[in-house]
Amino acid sequence: MSTIKELDSTLKVFEELESEVRSYIRSFPVTFEKSKGHSLWDQDGKEYIDFFAGAGALNYGHNPPLLKEQLLRYIAEDGISHSLDMGTKAKANFLTKFHEVILEPRNLNYKVMFPGPTGTNTVESALKLARKVTGRDSIISFTNAFHGMTLGSLSITGNSFKRHGAGVPLQNSVSMPFDKFLGTNVDTLDYLERFLEDNGSGVALPAGIIVETVQGEGGINVAEEAWLKRLADICNRWEILLIIDDVQAGCGRTGTFFSFEPAGIEPDIVCMSKSISGYGIPMAITLLKPEYDVWDPGEHNGTFRGHNLAFITATEALEYWKDDNLSGEVEEKGLKVGEFLDQLVREYPQLQGETRGRGLMRGIACKEEGLAEKICEQAFERGLIMETAGPDSEVFKIMPPLTITHNALDTGLAIIEDSIKMCIQK
Amino acid sequence: MSTIKELDSTLKVFEELESEVRSYIRSFPVTFEKSKGHSLWDQDGKEYIDFFAGAGALNYGHNPPLLKEQLLRYIAEDGISHSLDMGTKAKANFLTKFHEVILEPRNLNYKVMFPGPTGTNTVESALKLARKVTGRDSIISFTNAFHGMTLGSLSITGNSFKRHGAGVPLQNSVSMPFDKFLGTNVDTLDYLERFLEDNGSGVALPAGIIVETVQGEGGINVAEEAWLKRLADICNRWEILLIIDDVQAGCGRTGTFFSFEPAGIEPDIVCMSKSISGYGIPMAITLLKPEYDVWDPGEHNGTFRGHNLAFITATEALEYWKDDNLSGEVEEKGLKVGEFLDQLVREYPQLQGETRGRGLMRGIACKEEGLAEKICEQAFERGLIMETAGPDSEVFKIMPPLTITHNALDTGLAIIEDSIKMCIQK
Amino acid sequence: MSTIKELDSTLKVFEELESEVRSYIRSFPVTFEKSKGHSLWDQDGKEYIDFFAGAGALNYGHNPPLLKEQLLRYIAEDGISHSLDMGTKAKANFLTKFHEVILEPRNLNYKVMFPGPTGTNTVESALKLARKVTGRDSIISFTNAFHGMTLGSLSITGNSFKRHGAGVPLQNSVSMPFDKFLGTNVDTLDYLERFLEDNGSGVALPAGIIVETVQGEGGINVAEEAWLKRLADICNRWEILLIIDDVQAGCGRTGTFFSFEPAGIEPDIVCMSKSISGYGIPMAITLLKPEYDVWDPGEHNGTFRGHNLAFITATEALEYWKDDNLSGEVEEKGLKVGEFLDQLVREYPQLQGETRGRGLMRGIACKEEGLAEKICEQAFERGLIMETAGPDSEVFKIMPPLTITHNALDTGLAIIEDSIKMCIQK
Amino acid sequence: MSTIKELDSTLKVFEELESEVRSYIRSFPVTFEKSKGHSLWDQDGKEYIDFFAGAGALNYGHNPPLLKEQLLRYIAEDGISHSLDMGTKAKANFLTKFHEVILEPRNLNYKVMFPGPTGTNTVESALKLARKVTGRDSIISFTNAFHGMTLGSLSITGNSFKRHGAGVPLQNSVSMPFDKFLGTNVDTLDYLERFLEDNGSGVALPAGIIVETVQGEGGINVAEEAWLKRLADICNRWEILLIIDDVQAGCGRTGTFFSFEPAGIEPDIVCMSKSISGYGIPMAITLLKPEYDVWDPGEHNGTFRGHNLAFITATEALEYWKDDNLSGEVEEKGLKVGEFLDQLVREYPQLQGETRGRGLMRGIACKEEGLAEKICEQAFERGLIMETAGPDSEVFKIMPPLTITHNALDTGLAIIEDSIKMCIQK
Repeated sequence: MSTIKELDSTLKVFEELESEVRSYIRSFPVTFEKSKGHSLWDQDGKEYIDFFAGAGALNYGHNPPLLKEQLLRYIAEDGISHSLDMGTKAKANFLTKFHEVILEPRNLNYKVMFPGPTGTNTVESALKLARKVTGRDSIISFTNAFHGMTLGSLSITGNSFKRHGAGVPLQNSVSMPFDKFLGTNVDTLDYLERFLEDNGSGVALPAGIIVETVQGEGGINVAEEAWLKRLADICNRWEILLIIDDVQAGCGRTGTFFSFEPAGIEPDIVCMSKSISGYGIPMAITLLKPEYDVWDPGEHNGTFRGHNLAFITATEALEYWKDDNLSGEVEEKGLKVGEFLDQLVREYPQLQGETRGRGLMRGIACKEEGLAEKICEQAFERGLIMETAGPDSEVFKIMPPLTITHNALDTGLAIIEDSIKMCIQK
Repeated sequence: MSTIKELDSTLKVFEELESEVRSYIRSFPVTFEKSKGHSLWDQDGKEYIDFFAGAGALNYGHNPPLLKEQLLRYIAEDGISHSLDMGTKAKANFLTKFHEVILEPRNLNYKVMFPGPTGTNTVESALKLARKVTGRDSIISFTNAFHGMTLGSLSITGNSFKRHGAGVPLQNSVSMPFDKFLGTNVDTLDYLERFLEDNGSGVALPAGIIVETVQGEGGINVAEEAWLKRLADICNRWEILLIIDDVQAGCGRTGTFFSFEPAGIEPDIVCMSKSISGYGIPMAITLLKPEYDVWDPGEHNGTFRGHNLAFITATEALEYWKDDNLSGEVEEKGLKVGEFLDQLVREYPQLQGETRGRGLMRGIACKEEGLAEKICEQAFERGLIMETAGPDSEVFKIMPPLTITHNALDTGLAIIEDSIKMCIQK
Repeated sequence: MSTIKELDSTLKVFEELESEVRSYIRSFPVTFEKSKGHSLWDQDGKEYIDFFAGAGALNYGHNPPLLKEQLLRYIAEDGISHSLDMGTKAKANFLTKFHEVILEPRNLNYKVMFPGPTGTNTVESALKLARKVTGRDSIISFTNAFHGMTLGSLSITGNSFKRHGAGVPLQNSVSMPFDKFLGTNVDTLDYLERFLEDNGSGVALPAGIIVETVQGEGGINVAEEAWLKRLADICNRWEILLIIDDVQAGCGRTGTFFSFEPAGIEPDIVCMSKSISGYGIPMAITLLKPEYDVWDPGEHNGTFRGHNLAFITATEALEYWKDDNLSGEVEEKGLKVGEFLDQLVREYPQLQGETRGRGLMRGIACKEEGLAEKICEQAFERGLIMETAGPDSEVFKIMPPLTITHNALDTGLAIIEDSIKMCIQK
Repeated sequence: MSTIKELDSTLKVFEELESEVRSYIRSFPVTFEKSKGHSLWDQDGKEYIDFFAGAGALNYGHNPPLLKEQLLRYIAEDGISHSLDMGTKAKANFLTKFHEVILEPRNLNYKVMFPGPTGTNTVESALKLARKVTGRDSIISFTNAFHGMTLGSLSITGNSFKRHGAGVPLQNSVSMPFDKFLGTNVDTLDYLERFLEDNGSGVALPAGIIVETVQGEGGINVAEEAWLKRLADICNRWEILLIIDDVQAGCGRTGTFFSFEPAGIEPDIVCMSKSISGYGIPMAITLLKPEYDVWDPGEHNGTFRGHNLAFITATEALEYWKDDNLSGEVEEKGLKVGEFLDQLVREYPQLQGETRGRGLMRGIACKEEGLAEKICEQAFERGLIMETAGPDSEVFKIMPPLTITHNALDTGLAIIEDSIKMCIQK
């Protein structure tokens, strides 16, 4: 290893000091320094438009001004930073405002649990609770689901590379086909029901069924409203807890605060994280129907379940949901992106593309192996941050901040088209 | 449920809106609002001395001024908040300074992995890596270990209540007796070795052995240096990866930066979190010997593995380790607390107390069921925040910020003595 | 408990001294004493025609004369009874004759393993071997499969009541839909393949796929030849070991010695038991392709893997396979039974019956809950032993000895029709 | 492969047609043809004295005359061979006589279950029942335990080679140190209790504890009576089911019918197989206290749970237990063997031997690697069949039929001494 003295380039720092597990830095090989709204700047001052938004953790953009202001004030005034699950004013304010702004207007009745500050924490808490409530062992999840990297969440995640990373067999879960996994003509819930109703199917009645309404990592796969409704009915009929993992699709990414609102369903448990703090800082909540709040005190815990800086920004972020403006914007921009993608598919048949998505969670699945990755690479050279999704990284994924300007959105889309042209020529 | 209007008391907020899983708020039934150094204030302005320090997440006290300053500046300048594992200047600075200030002076050679921002994330990453490196399944952990609440970490955690919360059998782990678990006359590693060497023992050669040098949650149980050295020898001889979980005992809690330094061992993997950010905000790192850095890119990931606000405070916190001042202070204060506790045990035989601990991680195990909890309760009424540990909450635990003033330390200790007197009288 | 003196009735013996787990005695509440060919007699001398044949363990009828003669001679001459896996002349003779009469004429090349004397022993050995050969963990089995009651076999058995009996979650297996599980229009192997080919499906590449060509316990479900061929192709393409569990369908039950012969496939492993000894006494063999014979000596063992009395009768039983006579008989009788059942379905629409089966493994699935059981009950009263199958015991199952006379077969079928009439009237 | 024509030597038959998993034939490379009492003859007419007795399956010797007579008569009269769990006269007679001769005189009250005809079947049934009765998951077993090769039994077997054969991690079991595993000065039950009583031990309260009073395969390790008594007390105190696996040590091998009689304990479940049929043919029973007979009908089943030929010989074998003659003989011969072994240890210090055992289940553990195997090899050349035991095959094991003549016993012992001399010289 070279001495620290020689580490003049910051990329060299990562190569020499950080583990090989690092990943996105390989797609975006620069060192970022500053960010604002829909933009990042690297340390050479080059600006990038962000169509990635922290994988859905930056729905309100980088460092949104009102949140930033509250955060600075709270820190400056020596507000409590870390509180485990003691009572703090910051937490009380969040709970109250979340109830008033989010739950009450939607006629939803949930208790809020702070399970630790990440997506996988909320998912693991949901699995525990479903098992405790029902006394059953297994969880049904879906093909191409992504729920997290700790052992419980990994056992319900579809990706074989991630699963293999566990190093041990993953247990107590059954993978069922997501909507349209078997083609557009097959209602995959027929299959699921057949397994539930046949006493010899080898699939036990599960404690819970966990689903993302739009699978982000899995390839921007959208579950139809009717499919979700039927899934909720099935859960209800068989007394299975329905768990919506809204970690990526929630907080307005698809237009409504909860991604399941258009389907008109009421999940038993909802998992939220990523954009819930609104500032890209760690926070997660688990929402549970009061009748299922059978936890013993401390039965699930975690050092950072009381991250008050996050409570401050999360509370301020709820301002976005006091009216329908943001929802309207997402719908509008989403349609724009969707139409643009449809047009790309038509105009560039070499893509063999399939448009996917809902709200501002969109993408195109490209048939040719490696093509989506090449398009992202070209886009990055042109100043656009965009990533792939899907089991074979076959989808390029458009997930800008919901607050992106139309201008920046148009610029980004134009970069994509340029990048496609470049890739197709080659 | 009452309407929000009626929720005038903040405690009522928690009762009505937060899940029953909340725990510490039941021991400390107030709403905290502000904190600084070794003190917290509730919303009525009452001050509390903190002998809990966020369960070890606040080693440098609440809102340490220099860290706060850097944090405010970084936020004000729109430094990047969230970056997944992209390269950022904040991360590069942390990596460089951690290498210079911590690793190099100790002749330690580790790659740094960012596994997600909590203790259980780093532990889960360590388990995966040990399994990948060795191709083996099981992990040996110790009685009364606490490693986290997600399924992998829970499988190596001793506490039966927490384990039961999993709702499924926990697998691929074997629990062995921690130092002195079988009394002071038994070297429990004889037992461990016997199991390893006998081909019929029913205990397979494990991928790794994970251990806390001082078990915090488990009851302030201290592993002797000789025991740790022998454990390291055993791991070396059998080609088992030695994983030190320094989440609670690290970052100076026992006097040295790493808790294992006095034992003179070099673990293969080190798990750190809690006080690594220095500001009570979520961050974790996994240190691994370069020869074991066999991760594929992205094989373990997580949304909040790039929490740059934490990188900023963590980098500044390393200033504490540029000289021996803090270590010296911890030693001095630790001895003071230790002597005080010894004296309590002598003077109050009704405690049937046993003094435990190292550095500023101390406590007394009380024989009578419920006594330690009562003492904490009394202490809280007198303005001291202190918690219990151990499988039956039988230990009251003294873990103030390392930076506590001698004055406050003395005041806190006096409160403890008063509380004991009160409890014993009853 | 009454004293032994009072136990005058033999049924009382079972009630008082045998565990509640006993099962068939509840359907056939008499004490049997003697048997020959297709008949049993109870201790009162009443004769019963046997349409059950020991659940497929008595394909050549009760106490077939030539086997009986060999058995008596061997015992009389003090042939070795028990030999573990030492070499005995009885075993050598079986191995040689099995090779000559069964394997060579079919151009099959298998090594023979003696895994212990029961069906579940051979299945457990097959699972171990598939895992060892491939280094993979999981096994794919099918809905309504029945493979045995020990933990490994149970994990690939579909029946929820049996699975629940394990008392622990069953692991390392995935249940896929058997042929026609999703209706006659769906090729369920499309589904299986979709899961194998998608890297995000959550279903890992398995070590092996285990299948019964006709599911006996599962409800006399027949896999089509084309389905089996395609399954073999899939296994071949993905380098998955194909395991045929021929415990019930083998030894001529469907007409050919191996049930998979008509499909023209060559499984990698074949599990046989039940009728392999030919005399209803415990014996099992596992056939494996020589290239997969990677066992270490003694890696799988068992006290009764050398049951020489069974080797004697099994060797003699191979005489049935020196020509095509028996196969021809099974075909002829099978067709007769099939036509009779079709006719029943037509003539008794109240059955809402569905004819199932192949060879002399036939039955009718009745829609009305409990109807099949009632028919069996009536049949027993009329001197016919017949049992149900299927996850809800909805199929009455016709499995007489292959050697049954046409006369007895006709009598038995007539009893069934009478029983149906009786049940429908009620 | 050679054509069948060329397979003139019977050993060649095994090499070419049988799987590599075969084991004992490698220690005893001949083909056996006949057996009687304590003798076997190979096909060349050479006689061997049997100090192995089918690993405990031939306690009454090969083909004991009275049993043979009953067996021949029953077969000749067309007694029922195979009956699943229907009622048969043969089973009724066994149940009644077992109750009268074995249970009543010992004041034991057990229901009898027929779990399938092998040791691993009875063990798997015991595990299921313990889990059902208690609602708990895990089973505690002991170091160097051997309980069988199917997945449930394998999970509680100590041998690492056998365990590894599973190909998947073995679960829901905890291995605790058997008596004297940690040396003669350590009461290993202190250790077990410490784990049970500490709520943070990581070892859950188990459903059952399963133990062999003398570990046969594990190295002829004897549990002291006091240790067994204390174990029974522990089980009673913690409401854990005590399961005695008497498959090898039962049926008189240690002098009494049940091996646990001298300890004066009453297990909740007893597993028996091997010599229960008395003729070396497959049979097993599970004894359970009536209050634990909570099985649903058919919850555990198996094709060969009604092996009536075995019931016939097993019933006749009970004649041995109508008086104390056999017990007395075992004691006498056992003492003779024990003294002889003690003398060997004294006279041949090169053995570095340790005498082990009880009744006619004896042996010497030799320190030098491979020595015990060499002694067995030499003994075989001299006409004695003897095997090794222990995790490293370090024990040569003396387990003749209980009915061996003093003459043959002396001859066998003399062969052992000769073999030792030969091995030591080398």
